[in-house]
Amino acid sequence: MKELLGEFEEFLLKNLPKIDSFHPHFEAAMQDMLIAGGKRFRPMLLLSIVKAKKPLLLENSLKVALAIEFLHTYSLIHDDLPAMDNASLRRGFPTLHIKYDEVTAILVGDALNSESFNLIATASLHNDIKIELIKLLGHNGGLNGMVIGQAIDCHFEKQKLELEKLEFLHLNKTAKLIAASLKMGAIIASCGEKIEEELYSFGLDLGLLFQIQDDIIDELESSEEAGKTTQNDSFKNSFVNLLGLEEAKKSADDLAQKCLERLEVFDDELKDSLKDLLVSYINRHKKYNS
Amino acid sequence: MKELLGEFEEFLLKNLPKIDSFHPHFEAAMQDMLIAGGKRFRPMLLLSIVKAKKPLLLENSLKVALAIEFLHTYSLIHDDLPAMDNASLRRGFPTLHIKYDEVTAILVGDALNSESFNLIATASLHNDIKIELIKLLGHNGGLNGMVIGQAIDCHFEKQKLELEKLEFLHLNKTAKLIAASLKMGAIIASCGEKIEEELYSFGLDLGLLFQIQDDIIDELESSEEAGKTTQNDSFKNSFVNLLGLEEAKKSADDLAQKCLERLEVFDDELKDSLKDLLVSYINRHKKYNS
Repeated sequence: MKELLGEFEEFLLKNLPKIDSFHPHFEAAMQDMLIAGGKRFRPMLLLSIVKAKKPLLLENSLKVALAIEFLHTYSLIHDDLPAMDNASLRRGFPTLHIKYDEVTAILVGDALNSESFNLIATASLHNDIKIELIKLLGHNGGLNGMVIGQAIDCHFEKQKLELEKLEFLHLNKTAKLIAASLKMGAIIASCGEKIEEELYSFGLDLGLLFQIQDDIIDELESSEEAGKTTQNDSFKNSFVNLLGLEEAKKSADDLAQKCLERLEVFDDELKDSLKDLLVSYINRHKKYNS
Repeated sequence: MKELLGEFEEFLLKNLPKIDSFHPHFEAAMQDMLIAGGKRFRPMLLLSIVKAKKPLLLENSLKVALAIEFLHTYSLIHDDLPAMDNASLRRGFPTLHIKYDEVTAILVGDALNSESFNLIATASLHNDIKIELIKLLGHNGGLNGMVIGQAIDCHFEKQKLELEKLEFLHLNKTAKLIAASLKMGAIIASCGEKIEEELYSFGLDLGLLFQIQDDIIDELESSEEAGKTTQNDSFKNSFVNLLGLEEAKKSADDLAQKCLERLEVFDDELKDSLKDLLVSYINRHKKYNS
């Protein structure tokens, strides 16, 4: 798995977006957040499946994995804008609107968004495959996916959402792109419709699990830091605030168990590859159970 | 031509982006600027060519024309943001960050950007064609096209650019998407590489002409309104400020002449269709010559 990540990182550094212009910093700004790192989780989901089922297509799939990373990175850049999270740091580096200016941050996001589709269109794969991949990225990363999730997250920031709506938010904001990354791998590897759908549905569970885990870890770490048991000073829509810590932990345990069981249904190649990547993620909230 | 525009408007109203969610205004916000109108110039370029050369594909091309309008509209919404032009009106309606909020304006732009590629991917055309169209839109509407043009426009807002750089700005910000709209029509209509390139290159001239015309008309109308001959109070990168009014008019005349001559080179069907759409645009600065 480390080897695959290394291969992706190398490909990313060789394929950073380049601009032929006299703008003093736009090219660097386009590259900053891509170089800054992150777990590369979504590209690794796609690549793990291709590696397991069609290793000969791995090299040609790197561009599609990069496309997903571009789209994810644009969303982080826009989420960090003053009008949204107003964040000054991302991945340990100053955010683009801090380092350069807000115009740059908006436009770099816009450029990475469009370029993600261009990357897929220019990959060395069959056109029929590429059209399916573009549809999936457009659908899950777009208005009925990641974008409406983020819009709901921002709009209801100070209003308590009921459980079903909170789940809808995170299914759209996070889980759909994770699910799409898995399904895109399955489409490249011609796994067939049944496996594609199983992976997509598994990805939705996985994405939701990650959000519940994040909420639990946020709560526990900030409690520790603040030396008190709850953070009541600012309301935040989170599974912990809605369900309570113990119930949220139980939900995470249940969903983690479900994800581990779902992994067992896949054939050996898929199972081994995905377990290698995912088991530590799936169990990451459990260290807080002691 | 009016009939074709009517057909496009009807298609647009039937295919406005829809969102299945409990967000109170996001769907309406996605639709507002699309409904608000505009000349639909870029879609009409594409449709005029398809109508001239492959009328049977006209209906299936409407989705691609709509994709270009989505991309263009996202760029207007983001250009109007407080960090850029900080505009409160667009097409006679309040801009999205005024009517709703800045988060909505950013996210609606993001959604329309991604959705434009999804629209092409889901059009009823051959996959080989659609991949070429996506590449063209991604390239000309993206980082080495419209976006770098806008980035340069904003960054050098208060610094005088030399002619070559001003042309580079507008070729990227405006002309490339116009050129791509023509070329996309030619690709759908299988006009062949030679015509595709001639149309693209013609589109670049046309886009540049429009910008020089805009600068001339801006200058003359604001002079009239202000009752003085020049607007020296705020520096603006424009062809009029750089070349002077007379020289800018001469450039526009020369470029208009070149565009009209280039039109004559196309075969009768293309020539008639494009002349019908374009001659009044190409000559629009001339009414100020008297």
